Amino acid sequence: MKVSVIGATGYGGIELIRLLQHHPHMHVVSVHSSSQAGVSLHDVYPHIEERFVLRDIRSDDIEGELVFLATPPGVSSEWTPKLLAAGHKVIDLSGDFRLRDGNVYAKWYKKTPPSEEMFKQAVYGLTEWNREHIAKANIVANPGCYPTATLLGLAPLVIQKWVVSDSIIVDAKSGVSGAGRGVSLGVHFAETNENVKIYKVNTHQHIPEIEQMLGDWNDQIGPITFSTHLIPMTRGIMATIYAEAACIVSVDRIIELYEETYKHCPFVRVREAGSFPCTKDVYGSNYCDIGIAYDERTNRITVVSVIDNLMKGAAGQAVQNANVMFGFDEQTGLTAMPMYP
Amino acid sequence: MKVSVIGATGYGGIELIRLLQHHPHMHVVSVHSSSQAGVSLHDVYPHIEERFVLRDIRSDDIEGELVFLATPPGVSSEWTPKLLAAGHKVIDLSGDFRLRDGNVYAKWYKKTPPSEEMFKQAVYGLTEWNREHIAKANIVANPGCYPTATLLGLAPLVIQKWVVSDSIIVDAKSGVSGAGRGVSLGVHFAETNENVKIYKVNTHQHIPEIEQMLGDWNDQIGPITFSTHLIPMTRGIMATIYAEAACIVSVDRIIELYEETYKHCPFVRVREAGSFPCTKDVYGSNYCDIGIAYDERTNRITVVSVIDNLMKGAAGQAVQNANVMFGFDEQTGLTAMPMYP
Amino acid sequence: MKVSVIGATGYGGIELIRLLQHHPHMHVVSVHSSSQAGVSLHDVYPHIEERFVLRDIRSDDIEGELVFLATPPGVSSEWTPKLLAAGHKVIDLSGDFRLRDGNVYAKWYKKTPPSEEMFKQAVYGLTEWNREHIAKANIVANPGCYPTATLLGLAPLVIQKWVVSDSIIVDAKSGVSGAGRGVSLGVHFAETNENVKIYKVNTHQHIPEIEQMLGDWNDQIGPITFSTHLIPMTRGIMATIYAEAACIVSVDRIIELYEETYKHCPFVRVREAGSFPCTKDVYGSNYCDIGIAYDERTNRITVVSVIDNLMKGAAGQAVQNANVMFGFDEQTGLTAMPMYP
Amino acid sequence: MKVSVIGATGYGGIELIRLLQHHPHMHVVSVHSSSQAGVSLHDVYPHIEERFVLRDIRSDDIEGELVFLATPPGVSSEWTPKLLAAGHKVIDLSGDFRLRDGNVYAKWYKKTPPSEEMFKQAVYGLTEWNREHIAKANIVANPGCYPTATLLGLAPLVIQKWVVSDSIIVDAKSGVSGAGRGVSLGVHFAETNENVKIYKVNTHQHIPEIEQMLGDWNDQIGPITFSTHLIPMTRGIMATIYAEAACIVSVDRIIELYEETYKHCPFVRVREAGSFPCTKDVYGSNYCDIGIAYDERTNRITVVSVIDNLMKGAAGQAVQNANVMFGFDEQTGLTAMPMYP
Repeated sequence: MKVSVIGATGYGGIELIRLLQHHPHMHVVSVHSSSQAGVSLHDVYPHIEERFVLRDIRSDDIEGELVFLATPPGVSSEWTPKLLAAGHKVIDLSGDFRLRDGNVYAKWYKKTPPSEEMFKQAVYGLTEWNREHIAKANIVANPGCYPTATLLGLAPLVIQKWVVSDSIIVDAKSGVSGAGRGVSLGVHFAETNENVKIYKVNTHQHIPEIEQMLGDWNDQIGPITFSTHLIPMTRGIMATIYAEAACIVSVDRIIELYEETYKHCPFVRVREAGSFPCTKDVYGSNYCDIGIAYDERTNRITVVSVIDNLMKGAAGQAVQNANVMFGFDEQTGLTAMPMYP
Repeated sequence: MKVSVIGATGYGGIELIRLLQHHPHMHVVSVHSSSQAGVSLHDVYPHIEERFVLRDIRSDDIEGELVFLATPPGVSSEWTPKLLAAGHKVIDLSGDFRLRDGNVYAKWYKKTPPSEEMFKQAVYGLTEWNREHIAKANIVANPGCYPTATLLGLAPLVIQKWVVSDSIIVDAKSGVSGAGRGVSLGVHFAETNENVKIYKVNTHQHIPEIEQMLGDWNDQIGPITFSTHLIPMTRGIMATIYAEAACIVSVDRIIELYEETYKHCPFVRVREAGSFPCTKDVYGSNYCDIGIAYDERTNRITVVSVIDNLMKGAAGQAVQNANVMFGFDEQTGLTAMPMYP
Repeated sequence: MKVSVIGATGYGGIELIRLLQHHPHMHVVSVHSSSQAGVSLHDVYPHIEERFVLRDIRSDDIEGELVFLATPPGVSSEWTPKLLAAGHKVIDLSGDFRLRDGNVYAKWYKKTPPSEEMFKQAVYGLTEWNREHIAKANIVANPGCYPTATLLGLAPLVIQKWVVSDSIIVDAKSGVSGAGRGVSLGVHFAETNENVKIYKVNTHQHIPEIEQMLGDWNDQIGPITFSTHLIPMTRGIMATIYAEAACIVSVDRIIELYEETYKHCPFVRVREAGSFPCTKDVYGSNYCDIGIAYDERTNRITVVSVIDNLMKGAAGQAVQNANVMFGFDEQTGLTAMPMYP
Repeated sequence: MKVSVIGATGYGGIELIRLLQHHPHMHVVSVHSSSQAGVSLHDVYPHIEERFVLRDIRSDDIEGELVFLATPPGVSSEWTPKLLAAGHKVIDLSGDFRLRDGNVYAKWYKKTPPSEEMFKQAVYGLTEWNREHIAKANIVANPGCYPTATLLGLAPLVIQKWVVSDSIIVDAKSGVSGAGRGVSLGVHFAETNENVKIYKVNTHQHIPEIEQMLGDWNDQIGPITFSTHLIPMTRGIMATIYAEAACIVSVDRIIELYEETYKHCPFVRVREAGSFPCTKDVYGSNYCDIGIAYDERTNRITVVSVIDNLMKGAAGQAVQNANVMFGFDEQTGLTAMPMYP
């Protein structure tokens, strides 16, 4: 089947093209960029051999049953209605369709929300937890990188109500590619190297996305504390998650719960007791690796969840969702091992 | 005055030598290393011009009123009694004298503790909070790098009882130099670069050190959750500290408290509301920079505390303590600005 | 077909396993390690799912038509005769069989050379230049990482005698993974990060390997100057090659020569005039990208040749050679695009 | 004495302010920035305590006997005449006054050159080689970072005519801070990390600067090949210099020459035979460390010269020149040891 990528020159876009190059069923037929239309993709990324010429975003020029939108906030809310009208299905990697409430979107994104009707059609694409709806969806809102790591790390505990409902704190660390390819002092090498920075303290737009899903799973869950740190590496996210145990637990019992929960999820791997994943363990792959600790002294559970932010946190999960939407095996085109070191 | 450095070839030792090179009152007269005795320090560190020859650790060969011990755990518990008997004062950068309870030491360090008498003499060298005792001490137990960042970040809130006593979670991130100069797979560049690792989950030996001091300040404080992460940089620690507010607070009110508390502490700098320090802001300096947020949604306070682990977290604070012990201005030799970028 | 990997726990070995996971014709049946026999590979590398147990190196326990040796110097010279006798073909990623002269080997490697008979059987596996012999070989000596980048960058000029025979200088820069997984101060993160080091000045064991091949192409080529630098990254080699033009040339003419030379070499990509590759352009792929400049002021040609040292510089080229040896398309299993960023 | 810094918000400017903070004789009285006038320097660089407000560049507002210009190309050619007329002395860290020939400047900088009269007044500030003229100068053209490392590395050989006059090749590697604080894709962390890039091949504006000085020392020296590479670190330059020996030499004899040449140069340190400096050996210091090899096989000399590009390559050498201009000891304010690690 034919697919298109809009926003092909960003890091999410180029990762999609890398993944789809070897996909047995999906074939990229057109790539689009509003800022660089007319330019060869090879001129933007000389490491790419294929001689795509970037096209402008015009609906009559977009081909394929499926369109991936890897665009900045605000773009897909404009384009998705047109694409749907023209008969395409859409997977949106931006945050435009992840929240269901326009007011919440407006508050955290500081942008005009999509229409309520669009929101209703959009299905949240945390694949492991939404396969049935994704399979029937016309719009999939691909989750944010931080929410993916956090939600996969928290789901079993929240659903089982094993954690105190207002005790969740997530301390997340991300590589710099998560900030995208746009230039700014914040991504300047000399400012970022040999440095850790906390940013958007208590104001990150992924907070409502995480809380919405947690609330769907367990309506008693209160607001969470969620902090994001930029660390000097290119790829990778680690979410270190803290929560108070709400019942008698042990690390073995929790790990058993996670293994049971994710037994049919080939991309979620749970570590045995005492072992914790590092981001390099998932580098370049679609895995989410999870490690768990329980401390009797404090009665707190610590969950460590790692992903590659451009894979399971963006393009990888988008392809996983595309597989589900079109009836292919979920792992198709995504089974590459992590690259180490 | 004359001073000696034992353990001169480690990162703490070499940083002491760098700092003392320009100290107007202290002069390094001998440097010691059990593993490399007889070798010129210049051969170990070609960037050093001074032509010290490393001496073995033999008490009759150690000169100076003051001896800095920058040695691995277990060494200073053996050597300190001999040094005291020979009339030296001691600043110990290792963890041997930081805990007051031999059983706690044995549990977390898995080593034989120093004698109770030695413990009694040792003064905990968190300079800002212990100047009077340090001034009279014969043994100063220089704090660990993580405890320094954490305790300076928590002190005002804990002392004032503005936080719920069992709600403290510390998520700490450190550069690799904190692991010392010893070789292991854990510090191999190819394993550490482009990677974040959590380590010693709930078992780090700095946990009892932090809890002991918190308990001194406020005996209701319960056990804390404290996690340590290795990130791909050489120097720097960030402690992101979370706690539930125990009373009605605002970010302005908390910042006011911190500014008041630290107004006579030249090395502690408090940020204005909305501004948070990164580790580069203190690179190569003795500062501890602190930023504060309060989130009404969760009623949680977030404190961000950064230090250079080899400076305020080790050698810098050791010199600061030496200044206090010998009646010099606390800042002597320590006023270099951070190096940026 | 079945293959085995000896030395599976090193970086070359683990990269082979990553590549062969998706090879349509080759299947890894046993992995071996003298130092960690009996241990599960998953315990050494938790990112690997497959549950191989590392076996000792015992000839009666090694399966498969083909054995990859990814071992330190000196191991394959001992094991290869046994493996050949047992009917295996061998691709050796170490330097043991690359030189044809035992005295040269002994001088540069400071080890006892393999027997002359073994040397005679070994075929140098610079795939692009030796396909016919590789196709018939029982032992392929897989080229070193530096020689691969250097020789592919120099071949057309040397063969055509377009450069002055004693004018070649190669300034090479490598990521730290090239040093292998063994621990030492030289690969300690804190010593390597924020640092460039030159090493083995004029004594690198890859010098005779490069000169031997250059001499085969053009017997007038004199000794070369070849310098190696360690830079703070994990993967990648750049060889910046300088040589004096021996005839009237232009950058366009040289590029034409390279394109003509490599037109049937899918893994060698030549840049257009004015464009130069960086190591990230080949990250995780089997490509060797080449850029060329000619400076009229100095009459010197500059060739910039980049590879991923663990791919085209080790495991990737080994698989490429295996494909040639067993009659598969040269690109089989090696067509993944570079990972960017 | 009072000094001003124009261009205070760039990396050269902020390093000047760091160095001058502890200078016993020079005191920064005003800091200027055309782009951020009116802003507090603390708001631009929160790590700085001093509460300078950035002033615009207006000649009647600039104080002090000496003005440091740490501005982009083209600014100081405009401002220096005004500053001289107002009675200031000037040290220019940009490239505007380094070349003596306006046509050469125009060709390599693609900008209108300063007037010939201005060129005549400007003294090239490679301190070790021009102390007498610097002492009397009104304008010092502070050398570029690459020329400093290269020229100090080449001077003895070129002056003594120990190298073949047209055989010099310089392969230089630089950290990213050398590109300045301006934002661009070229300094984006995700594009620069895990990457080596060659840039400005045969066209770097430092080429004529190096050749001019070499020509002053030895008028037979021909054009040089000079390549620049960006490597993933913040600070540091290594110049690896290759040249053919023009007479019978040995490594010991060459080292002796260097030691003799630089015996009164406290910032140039020559390594003993077999030892080579890395950039970390000079990190944060004003040293230039030099190592030397001679290869009998090729009759080539290799010189390895390292500096901190922001120190000896910019602000450090500027302060060194200021010391010479105003009669202070050359080392004043510059004796800090390198920071390691």
